Amino acid sequence: MDRRRCLDRDTASGLAAVRDRFELPADLVYLDGNSLGPLQAVVADRLAAVVADEWGHGLVRSWNEAGWLELTARCAARIARIVGAGPHEVTVTDSTSVDLFGVLAALRPLRPGREIVLTHDDNFPTDRYVTEGVAATVGDLEVVVTPADRLAERVAEDVAVVLATHVDYRTGARLDAPALTAAAHEAGALMVWDLAHSAGAVPVDLHGWGADAAVGCTYKFLNGGPGAPGWLFVRSGLASRVAPPIRGWFGHARPFDFARAYEPAPGAARFRNGTPPLLSLAALEAALRVWDDVDPAAATDHAAGLTATFLEALEAVGVDLAVATPLDPDRRGAQVSLRHGAAGAVMRALVAAGVIGDHRPPDLLRFGFSPLFVRHVDAWDAAATLRRVLEERPWEHGRTPPRGPVP
Amino acid sequence: MDRRRCLDRDTASGLAAVRDRFELPADLVYLDGNSLGPLQAVVADRLAAVVADEWGHGLVRSWNEAGWLELTARCAARIARIVGAGPHEVTVTDSTSVDLFGVLAALRPLRPGREIVLTHDDNFPTDRYVTEGVAATVGDLEVVVTPADRLAERVAEDVAVVLATHVDYRTGARLDAPALTAAAHEAGALMVWDLAHSAGAVPVDLHGWGADAAVGCTYKFLNGGPGAPGWLFVRSGLASRVAPPIRGWFGHARPFDFARAYEPAPGAARFRNGTPPLLSLAALEAALRVWDDVDPAAATDHAAGLTATFLEALEAVGVDLAVATPLDPDRRGAQVSLRHGAAGAVMRALVAAGVIGDHRPPDLLRFGFSPLFVRHVDAWDAAATLRRVLEERPWEHGRTPPRGPVP
Repeated sequence: MDRRRCLDRDTASGLAAVRDRFELPADLVYLDGNSLGPLQAVVADRLAAVVADEWGHGLVRSWNEAGWLELTARCAARIARIVGAGPHEVTVTDSTSVDLFGVLAALRPLRPGREIVLTHDDNFPTDRYVTEGVAATVGDLEVVVTPADRLAERVAEDVAVVLATHVDYRTGARLDAPALTAAAHEAGALMVWDLAHSAGAVPVDLHGWGADAAVGCTYKFLNGGPGAPGWLFVRSGLASRVAPPIRGWFGHARPFDFARAYEPAPGAARFRNGTPPLLSLAALEAALRVWDDVDPAAATDHAAGLTATFLEALEAVGVDLAVATPLDPDRRGAQVSLRHGAAGAVMRALVAAGVIGDHRPPDLLRFGFSPLFVRHVDAWDAAATLRRVLEERPWEHGRTPPRGPVP
Repeated sequence: MDRRRCLDRDTASGLAAVRDRFELPADLVYLDGNSLGPLQAVVADRLAAVVADEWGHGLVRSWNEAGWLELTARCAARIARIVGAGPHEVTVTDSTSVDLFGVLAALRPLRPGREIVLTHDDNFPTDRYVTEGVAATVGDLEVVVTPADRLAERVAEDVAVVLATHVDYRTGARLDAPALTAAAHEAGALMVWDLAHSAGAVPVDLHGWGADAAVGCTYKFLNGGPGAPGWLFVRSGLASRVAPPIRGWFGHARPFDFARAYEPAPGAARFRNGTPPLLSLAALEAALRVWDDVDPAAATDHAAGLTATFLEALEAVGVDLAVATPLDPDRRGAQVSLRHGAAGAVMRALVAAGVIGDHRPPDLLRFGFSPLFVRHVDAWDAAATLRRVLEERPWEHGRTPPRGPVP
């Protein structure tokens, strides 16, 4: 294994032309697309046109004349293809947190008499906060947590909903989604997936899994821009049986009738509520267009290859940190996490050396391998730079940049 | 009253230089800033820089280095000044609908044993949908509606919260906020205001009114851009006693600790939840900067003058449609609505003639007088064009543009 072999793998990957669409700074290895995906040139151009032409010149007429009303559905259809869902089963709205609140509160009445939402203790903190908030708000609902690998064992007839995050944001460990979904259903519970670190990164097949609902993020592997809206999925046949807790005019069947009575839109679109953030949504749509030319399976294959290359490269260059990420490629996301007692300082030194990953307290160095723009040679260069930083240990010589509020 | 006098009033208004900041198409009279405020040049420039430099080049580092974490608080402080609140009593997050859901669900437990949310039957439809959604979600809560002018009479010891919209979106009628707030408090209820059509348009003094909470919109009179985030107010001392139903990491006291236990941020900021829509928020901040140079009272005085000029102009040019808006300037918003049996066709003809207002079913022509860019001469020209359209009646000759999905 060497750098030359990585360059050969990139030539073979077929995704080089896709990478050229991204506006990445020269000489930077960007392995934090699992936190914030980078900009594509087409997004900047599209957003400038939306601002100057559609908002600036078209003004309120753009709701009719610039297709603003259909923007959400166009984004949803593109995401649906990536996650193995039908276009009307997905909508794009609010943040992942609001979407999760809406889905959990809406599904809960479908399982009367069952008083537990089951989730895992290492779930993303917001997922736990949101779940606890749902329980506190709707009443008669208790949040029970287990280790992720005990969820299938714990689910029983007292569980209304199982909520699990597919790929762990710290370790990159990936759960067996079809198996856990089947276990939930066998116990009569509904299965909700958080796919924030999955969509666009690892194979997702919501129909194949039999999932009831899911939420996800568009600013990570979908490169939609900072704080781009969340998305949610509610399977066909289920959406029509649930009432969203937050009911707004954009989730109404006929929003511009201004009817006094609420009548939810068909499908997942009923989970929309207020006027959507058009500028963020327009940026997202432009960002999603790249997927029109990329087979999701080719992208996730490439991501799996990148994490494998990084693990090989670490060994080849002689980095012997503990790997927190599962070595089985089917059990990990598009991410490799390494442990180091001074992880924050190591990462700041790495960033100063031109390799951007991130640090998750207390001891994790996190590297994301977002498939549309990361190359095998980036994985190599990151490993080589990490080796150098670990040798030089600049944090022991007062040469590490200071800590910011974001670790 | 004539056009010359309107030009004189504009010269005297002192807001001409402010108008120059807006990118309004030439020869257009834009009286729909109460639906979507127009673009300022500084907003387009700022957004382009955020996209190219902060997202494109800074990437994830911009959370630390470009002040993204403080963006919400900076927007909130500017809005707080406009509505007579302290900076920590306001936050900017999600949509007005999500904000209203959060505020109502959070306040409800403060009045145990009271099982009614009281609102008015002509409230904005979404406010009714959201209120009904809160009641359906939290249980033990009933929505009671009365005509707006009966709210003070109806409020009693069975009412937990009164929700009222200050300025009616159809007629522009403005409620007496201090009086209704006092009546709610006298009955022991909490008072929540929807200020979507108020902030930046009419005097708002949340401290002076004694309001408990409020929500509002930033894409109308605050010109924040299509679908710009909502804002909410919870008065000092009350926020620390309530738990938001939707709990996310950006409303956590220390979001980047990724703590397993939820601990709400101090003040109204606890109502934040997911990662905010940075692009929309950056546009909003740039749009709000104009208020650094404008006294809110000067703006609302100008708006009141504009609606008076429009009413005078209608009489001067001989438009004798019924006025749905109160003639008492203290009882109306920055809006005048007129009734016409073919209001939709009249408005489409007006738009084709270069005057953009809007139509609200069934019979209202709605004209918004947003103070930062509308001039007295625009009010005159709108009245004169309306007179011509009513004479020519192009909809009777098949010369009116077709109806779009948005009325």
